[in-house]
Amino acid sequence: MDYFYGPGRNHLFVPGPVNIPEQVIRAMNRNNEDYRSPAVPALTKTLLEDVKKVFKTTSGTPFMIPTTGTGAWESALTNTLSPGDRIVSFLIGQFSLLWIDQQQRLNFNVDVVESDWGQGANLDVLASKIAEDKEHTIKAICIVHNETATGVTNNLATVRKILDHYQHPALFLVDGVSSICALDFRMDEWGIDVALTGSQKALSLPTGMGIICASPKALEATKTAKSVRVFFDWNDYLKFYKMGTYWPYTPSIQLLYGLRAALDLIFEEGLDNVIARHGRLAKATRLAVEAWGLKNCTQKEEWFSDTVTAVVVPPYIDSSEIVKRAWKRYNLSLGLGLNKVAGKVFRIGHLGNLNEVRLLCYMFLH
Amino acid sequence: MDYFYGPGRNHLFVPGPVNIPEQVIRAMNRNNEDYRSPAVPALTKTLLEDVKKVFKTTSGTPFMIPTTGTGAWESALTNTLSPGDRIVSFLIGQFSLLWIDQQQRLNFNVDVVESDWGQGANLDVLASKIAEDKEHTIKAICIVHNETATGVTNNLATVRKILDHYQHPALFLVDGVSSICALDFRMDEWGIDVALTGSQKALSLPTGMGIICASPKALEATKTAKSVRVFFDWNDYLKFYKMGTYWPYTPSIQLLYGLRAALDLIFEEGLDNVIARHGRLAKATRLAVEAWGLKNCTQKEEWFSDTVTAVVVPPYIDSSEIVKRAWKRYNLSLGLGLNKVAGKVFRIGHLGNLNEVRLLCYMFLH
Amino acid sequence: MDYFYGPGRNHLFVPGPVNIPEQVIRAMNRNNEDYRSPAVPALTKTLLEDVKKVFKTTSGTPFMIPTTGTGAWESALTNTLSPGDRIVSFLIGQFSLLWIDQQQRLNFNVDVVESDWGQGANLDVLASKIAEDKEHTIKAICIVHNETATGVTNNLATVRKILDHYQHPALFLVDGVSSICALDFRMDEWGIDVALTGSQKALSLPTGMGIICASPKALEATKTAKSVRVFFDWNDYLKFYKMGTYWPYTPSIQLLYGLRAALDLIFEEGLDNVIARHGRLAKATRLAVEAWGLKNCTQKEEWFSDTVTAVVVPPYIDSSEIVKRAWKRYNLSLGLGLNKVAGKVFRIGHLGNLNEVRLLCYMFLH
Amino acid sequence: MDYFYGPGRNHLFVPGPVNIPEQVIRAMNRNNEDYRSPAVPALTKTLLEDVKKVFKTTSGTPFMIPTTGTGAWESALTNTLSPGDRIVSFLIGQFSLLWIDQQQRLNFNVDVVESDWGQGANLDVLASKIAEDKEHTIKAICIVHNETATGVTNNLATVRKILDHYQHPALFLVDGVSSICALDFRMDEWGIDVALTGSQKALSLPTGMGIICASPKALEATKTAKSVRVFFDWNDYLKFYKMGTYWPYTPSIQLLYGLRAALDLIFEEGLDNVIARHGRLAKATRLAVEAWGLKNCTQKEEWFSDTVTAVVVPPYIDSSEIVKRAWKRYNLSLGLGLNKVAGKVFRIGHLGNLNEVRLLCYMFLH
Repeated sequence: MDYFYGPGRNHLFVPGPVNIPEQVIRAMNRNNEDYRSPAVPALTKTLLEDVKKVFKTTSGTPFMIPTTGTGAWESALTNTLSPGDRIVSFLIGQFSLLWIDQQQRLNFNVDVVESDWGQGANLDVLASKIAEDKEHTIKAICIVHNETATGVTNNLATVRKILDHYQHPALFLVDGVSSICALDFRMDEWGIDVALTGSQKALSLPTGMGIICASPKALEATKTAKSVRVFFDWNDYLKFYKMGTYWPYTPSIQLLYGLRAALDLIFEEGLDNVIARHGRLAKATRLAVEAWGLKNCTQKEEWFSDTVTAVVVPPYIDSSEIVKRAWKRYNLSLGLGLNKVAGKVFRIGHLGNLNEVRLLCYMFLH
Repeated sequence: MDYFYGPGRNHLFVPGPVNIPEQVIRAMNRNNEDYRSPAVPALTKTLLEDVKKVFKTTSGTPFMIPTTGTGAWESALTNTLSPGDRIVSFLIGQFSLLWIDQQQRLNFNVDVVESDWGQGANLDVLASKIAEDKEHTIKAICIVHNETATGVTNNLATVRKILDHYQHPALFLVDGVSSICALDFRMDEWGIDVALTGSQKALSLPTGMGIICASPKALEATKTAKSVRVFFDWNDYLKFYKMGTYWPYTPSIQLLYGLRAALDLIFEEGLDNVIARHGRLAKATRLAVEAWGLKNCTQKEEWFSDTVTAVVVPPYIDSSEIVKRAWKRYNLSLGLGLNKVAGKVFRIGHLGNLNEVRLLCYMFLH
Repeated sequence: MDYFYGPGRNHLFVPGPVNIPEQVIRAMNRNNEDYRSPAVPALTKTLLEDVKKVFKTTSGTPFMIPTTGTGAWESALTNTLSPGDRIVSFLIGQFSLLWIDQQQRLNFNVDVVESDWGQGANLDVLASKIAEDKEHTIKAICIVHNETATGVTNNLATVRKILDHYQHPALFLVDGVSSICALDFRMDEWGIDVALTGSQKALSLPTGMGIICASPKALEATKTAKSVRVFFDWNDYLKFYKMGTYWPYTPSIQLLYGLRAALDLIFEEGLDNVIARHGRLAKATRLAVEAWGLKNCTQKEEWFSDTVTAVVVPPYIDSSEIVKRAWKRYNLSLGLGLNKVAGKVFRIGHLGNLNEVRLLCYMFLH
Repeated sequence: MDYFYGPGRNHLFVPGPVNIPEQVIRAMNRNNEDYRSPAVPALTKTLLEDVKKVFKTTSGTPFMIPTTGTGAWESALTNTLSPGDRIVSFLIGQFSLLWIDQQQRLNFNVDVVESDWGQGANLDVLASKIAEDKEHTIKAICIVHNETATGVTNNLATVRKILDHYQHPALFLVDGVSSICALDFRMDEWGIDVALTGSQKALSLPTGMGIICASPKALEATKTAKSVRVFFDWNDYLKFYKMGTYWPYTPSIQLLYGLRAALDLIFEEGLDNVIARHGRLAKATRLAVEAWGLKNCTQKEEWFSDTVTAVVVPPYIDSSEIVKRAWKRYNLSLGLGLNKVAGKVFRIGHLGNLNEVRLLCYMFLH
């Protein structure tokens, strides 16, 4: 039933889902278990405690929801906000666009701050908006830490500085899908209220778990948030946390054991070493792109992403043809250009459990 | 990191998540893949086609959402109904209770028809309500085909007959979580508008995929349904179906290959043989319970469930102690009694890829 | 490609190869590795140290040869003896017969001491032979600790006592294939010179590793043993042990990691607890056989085996039909009767990583 | 228990054991089975038939012995020859040296024909010896098709021509360990009498199965061959082949299913395409070595090996340091120089289920 790839293993360099370490594949190679037995809550407890470390939070409350990044977004918004709430959101690429689309469909009142694709969030506009908003009509700032479509990393510390400068109480909601566990991310230090990621990104698991951390302020906000939610309702989780059984509905046993193995690998290497490694491999990628004589889609060094590099191809080439040929002839998977940059860029994902030599695999592109 | 069980394999007889066949475990033992490559849509296409067969529908449209049964419920309701819509729902056990709770929190106007736990849905009340509802204020009938908490199977054919008799246009929404692929289930013949199940039940996969089938009438209803939905929105799926890329967001690669293997096993045995086997093993279970001198929680034979048997323990015994001891001393997992029947019943799940001998594993209870 | 068994898992109750614990299957789920890297010798070192514990030896030297029990036999004989050497060997069932056949084909001069199948080794004959052998023409005693064909366990302590009583220097070579790790086995205390087992027996691994322990006296004997040997030559191993690279030729990487996991499980439970558990499950099996009204092939309680029970069927039944039907109808694998007891007995293997409930699986035979 | 490698997967480029395809790892991810059930013989039958195809023989008889290449050598020699028999054997590197050592220890009378390491077998000497041997005292020619230590491929067709030219009846025994399934190999066409390989080489399985094919003439020779053999005796296999149960002792169930998957992959790609791919990747490797300014250990193009390249390092560098650093810093496994070329060469294995991109992994060496 396997689709035919030709000989050898697939070389996976899309920015997600990423390569799964052998240790994690092994940990997930198992039968189901009763999630109401004493074993699963005991395991869950260690995971909830340890997952906070990759968010660099001690005060946050984590939720591991059987969903994807899209569902994690929805959970972040509906648990903390009410229909009609004004939010500021930054449009800088396909994934921020999709989140904004979700925000609008959930009936929030979204101030969209747009940048050219390849640029970071325009935080000057944010500063003006916050400065002007004496009456605190802005309820939340929604920002994608790392825009996977263009390889742009936004500066979250500056967002926090702006809010603090004006003593603005807006919630600070962050999509960390392609950043957490790979880029420098500091939930507590940067005063982030909701941060989220997906299992298939830097954690290097299969898809299927949206991991969210909520600050005490975010939890407080749930009490007044009127957005309709059931599956994504954090309160159902909190109720089961109190009972010590942890799960309002059935989790994936395999993902729990996989997450345990993934966290163990990260802690063994050291989270800061993991982040430094991403920096090192990303730099090597950018140097390679430069050596090929191609341009990085990201327009300024301050926005360079250490998890994904979007490479601009010459105008007479269709980037999707490169991706197609890489897959068909070399069993090499690269990311397509999306929406505005379709045909113009291809993307190299360099996140997750990679090493120097593995990265060489896409070098044939030269 | 494995929690210690003692020697030997765990004997899993909860009504979900159920035992995964070795063939399915093998199929899922793999790295991630790019879901935008040509391979994943090609695989998805076969799955969408074949999954309809286990619902016994040719006209339905399937959705395989990265979620659980709870999420599948939410998807069924929010895609077809608007807040304030009147629905009739049957409360006969913990899972129907949870679905009703969801219906209420999603702001539907729910006529709850309650039965004693151990009895089936009161379809006489349904008939009266339908007969009276000349103006068609009832927009949907929501019913759990098989109540997992009490081992009660409702008669779906009768529901259809009632609706047809009164030519009532209410949508017919069915939770088939612990029935589809195990009990006789005929989506098209019974005129079901939305049917749903979860991957970790009779399909014998890990948790993480909610599978829903929508009739043409249900799809039509999405056009006017005003419930807020994004992650669960079928329209996003339909858009990607048209493009042939199938996925609005990242699916679990492992579950896709696992589902392929699971369906292959079912078709190899023959779906009707699978259903007959469930009948045979369920009957053996009920005979064993009788031989032990214990009572079935299900009050009448017409409601006997072929996927789960809830066993009533004598009043001087706490059923949760039996479950605890079975797990601790015999590495045998049984289902707890839930809510109203907590402490009073324990549950034997006999669904999924089981055989006669495997079933003997719980016989020690004698 | 999987041969069709019907639904559910296979119930494996042959006396080998036995069920592999999930933890061991997981540990073996891996790519190959360079066995000349620093990692493999480091792992090997821990295995050589720990494997001695299951033989209960501190002075023995272990060899883990990529072969089966038959190869381990050959290694035991050819490393310690010369063609023409006189040995005493006990014929009590098919496996002792096969070993004797090997001894004869390797040109040893074998005194075969035969018992009825179902009886243990006739140690009175041994005592006479040893008593008479003042000139020490007997170079070795070869005995199968547990005859897998008839479920008979020989008394090794008595063999040692006889040799000690007459101060006879014969080597004491023991086939522990279906005993080590399951029955009470004390290499050092009983003065065993060569003991051996296979990975697929009580260690609960796949087939492919013959594990042998040699006493200092056995190692001394290699210096004068003139039997031709290359692949099975312990000296090649000893040479590589000294260099710290351990392997004269390529080992199975997967079996090394599997053995690590298997030993970890045994030590976690405690070797003596493992042995006690085998005793308990064996007793339950014998009681069941009795309850069925059938006879144990083993003729006296002193020889009852705690790893395999051979069950005598009534004369009007062909036991191979029972085995065939069990497999075909119930996906249950039992051992056939072999050679002299073909058609007359079937065998239940109850060794390895089993528990009480698992054992119930063959109870349907009633 | 996993030895720590650092992040990312190991890059395995030793000439064996080689990378295992995911499909094969999956196929082997299973519990044991009763090898006396109907399923295992049915599987074995297909394997015996299909394995002949990779030897390009229709008249040969295959044996799949639970052993390594070293054991397969022993099986080839002891089944066809008697102690004292004169054989001609070519010493051109470490593996031919080891085979010759075995031949001598098995008491054959070996004419060793030595070449410089880096050169092929001196077939002129063979021609003289054969020409002179009017009385047919030479019973066998033993030759390693591909010497893994130096990356030298011998010309087997020429050996056959020499024998035919002089109508010499010597048996033609070939070690195809690092050639069969990767290099052009034609058992029948070249009149090879015994050919052998190991599972962990081009078949891309774990270690543990020695696969041997014997010509009708070789089978005839077993009748007079007086070498002592039991474990390796083909006659035991032939006896069980006739009974249709195939196995004189327990095989590895996992390797059988793995071999099935490995053969399926080879046939899907096409054996000749597999061989052509090895040629292509080998050429790329040699060009890379040239581009690095380094020398191939193989002294003439006619001997270039398409499965392994031994690279000569400058005299002021210790090649084992390169191998050590590659492993430690880059998680890249290369082959050491052995014996005479220790410290002077390192080896790149490019055999098995590889593709172009994977091969790039060692390019960092530049």
